[in-house]
Amino acid sequence: MNAEISSLFESTLHSPSLFSLQAKLGGTEVRDYCIPVNPYFPTPAMFDGFRSRLETVLKYYPGYNEDIATTLSRTFGYDPETLVMGNGSTELITFIDLLFVRSLAIPIPTFSRWTETPFGNGKPVQLFRRREEEGFALDVDGFIDFIRRSDANAAVICNPNNPTGAFCATKEVIRMVEALQHLDVIVIDESFADFVDEFEIPSVAKEAVRYPNVIVLKSLGKSFGLHGVRAGFAIANPALAGKLRKAIPYWNLNAVAEMLVRDLGQYMEVYEQGRRQVVRDRQSLEMGLRSVSGLKVFPSRANFVYFRVPDGVSGPELRNRLLEDHGILVRECGNKSGSSSQFFRVAARPQGENRYLLKALKKELGSKTES
Amino acid sequence: MNAEISSLFESTLHSPSLFSLQAKLGGTEVRDYCIPVNPYFPTPAMFDGFRSRLETVLKYYPGYNEDIATTLSRTFGYDPETLVMGNGSTELITFIDLLFVRSLAIPIPTFSRWTETPFGNGKPVQLFRRREEEGFALDVDGFIDFIRRSDANAAVICNPNNPTGAFCATKEVIRMVEALQHLDVIVIDESFADFVDEFEIPSVAKEAVRYPNVIVLKSLGKSFGLHGVRAGFAIANPALAGKLRKAIPYWNLNAVAEMLVRDLGQYMEVYEQGRRQVVRDRQSLEMGLRSVSGLKVFPSRANFVYFRVPDGVSGPELRNRLLEDHGILVRECGNKSGSSSQFFRVAARPQGENRYLLKALKKELGSKTES
Repeated sequence: MNAEISSLFESTLHSPSLFSLQAKLGGTEVRDYCIPVNPYFPTPAMFDGFRSRLETVLKYYPGYNEDIATTLSRTFGYDPETLVMGNGSTELITFIDLLFVRSLAIPIPTFSRWTETPFGNGKPVQLFRRREEEGFALDVDGFIDFIRRSDANAAVICNPNNPTGAFCATKEVIRMVEALQHLDVIVIDESFADFVDEFEIPSVAKEAVRYPNVIVLKSLGKSFGLHGVRAGFAIANPALAGKLRKAIPYWNLNAVAEMLVRDLGQYMEVYEQGRRQVVRDRQSLEMGLRSVSGLKVFPSRANFVYFRVPDGVSGPELRNRLLEDHGILVRECGNKSGSSSQFFRVAARPQGENRYLLKALKKELGSKTES
Repeated sequence: MNAEISSLFESTLHSPSLFSLQAKLGGTEVRDYCIPVNPYFPTPAMFDGFRSRLETVLKYYPGYNEDIATTLSRTFGYDPETLVMGNGSTELITFIDLLFVRSLAIPIPTFSRWTETPFGNGKPVQLFRRREEEGFALDVDGFIDFIRRSDANAAVICNPNNPTGAFCATKEVIRMVEALQHLDVIVIDESFADFVDEFEIPSVAKEAVRYPNVIVLKSLGKSFGLHGVRAGFAIANPALAGKLRKAIPYWNLNAVAEMLVRDLGQYMEVYEQGRRQVVRDRQSLEMGLRSVSGLKVFPSRANFVYFRVPDGVSGPELRNRLLEDHGILVRECGNKSGSSSQFFRVAARPQGENRYLLKALKKELGSKTES
């Protein structure tokens, strides 16, 4: 069983799907702490709305990209000329790489689509290591120097970073952007930015449009708890946004993504309540993890927490035990560059679920305070 | 009102969405003969299945492209190595153009994504005119000669053709492919092939994989009546398929497309019944149109029929009258290269709906036999 489960994890750079694991475990309920999902959104009422219109919207063509993008830009208060909607942020990553990247510089560990996409297309990827002893915080000056000494024409940072959760203040990001005006493109991937802070959503999107070479990426799937819907967007100055918009497929958004965008406006207050709760859930998870024996927990500003298990513990074995004995799926980060099997990413979930995870981890690793 | 309606049609190379028209008409029910939709599929039971799983599948990541493609290839009996799934055929068109097209030869009138995509990317598009006096049938030898005299490295034919419905026999397509082995790529877009014949689905997909330069395109949305779901696929030899698969975004399929693919196998018999009915609906629509005064009706093997109105009739005016006085939306083809405002495409719908359309056309144009 253990080998069979391990083989499922080995077949992909990301994670096996929850459904394939559940099937392998003979239908045992699996609690997913692997994919950070927003558990408070969409509300049951929104899903009811989706279900009641499903047949009609699926039978007809969805709107064109620009129609839907215009609706979304109104909801979020962006200039429609600066917004491009993608079939998930993965589509935008693919086209940003195709159009603008010749040689990429990127801090690691990070979201592997950003390293694998250019690498798969035969382009050099220059990896700048975030340092564990600094809690994986981005060394902005170090990264600027690294880029200046490289032949990179493009740079990407994820902020907050995935999988580490490290966050770089808006002011620092803008200082980096200012220093990198010789690059063709700088991407700030803010896919997890909605979960940085209870009282504000820090973003460089509004400033970014003033630069000729900055693209800010946002993920609706990650923020709104709908990974299956495939919807992300990019914000950039109109010239850069126009190039991206022209390249991506004409009808790239599906009918459910269109419903989500059209409905979002009326649900933003409900979303805001849930978003704040996710931030509190992450804060309490991070605190809880600090009470598990031997864990080194890194400060997170996303909806997940990154930690290291002691050298004597085998990461893959712990991952398999959590799954088999507790029905808990976590992300063991051994296949991420700049990480290792000692590192795990766990999603913040509602308090009861967080406690379930903490209890299992304490059972496997021990507790600092015998609480 | 008329000018306002006309302006909606002018803003796009395709058609305004049904929803935008309905809103403009103050909520009047619009009967759509514009988008050829399969009215017999999916069944209500399939939609129930989609609705009941909607929340779960939307909250988690869909499977990877290759997982889903493997399931689909089993259902249709293709070698998984030869099949690539796209986020609608539009995504495949975009990447085929990006990867393989330097200069394209294509018979017109045709599906405008095939001409606009390369044209928009600054590539030469060589238009080979299908002749009205031949019922828009493809002159295979003429097209081969045309390509040989051009600098095209790529050719596309839609078979059956959109919007004319003209069909080129499988044997002739293969003869063309044999003659064009000097090209880098030949695409046979079989998006409407399921509606050619009541008793078989003609396709060159199985033969195509023997050639180094042939891609056959299929559209699940068009066949299965789900344009909003965004799902199409390409069949090609493993080397060519591999290049396409490598280029397209990693998670390009949404959760509803995945459900459709996973469910299809068990519903193929029901689909087959509906597919045959669509063929019969088109046959009776074509026959019916021949009884409308002044119409020149072209032989169709798709789920729509192409016809020409007399020179004295204004196409846009007829289109607007059908919409305002009868709530009927049809495709006036004035904005398609190789067509003009005298040409219309109408979708085959269930017999009662076909009769409604014929009655309205006879009221506007007169009837040949006063039946």
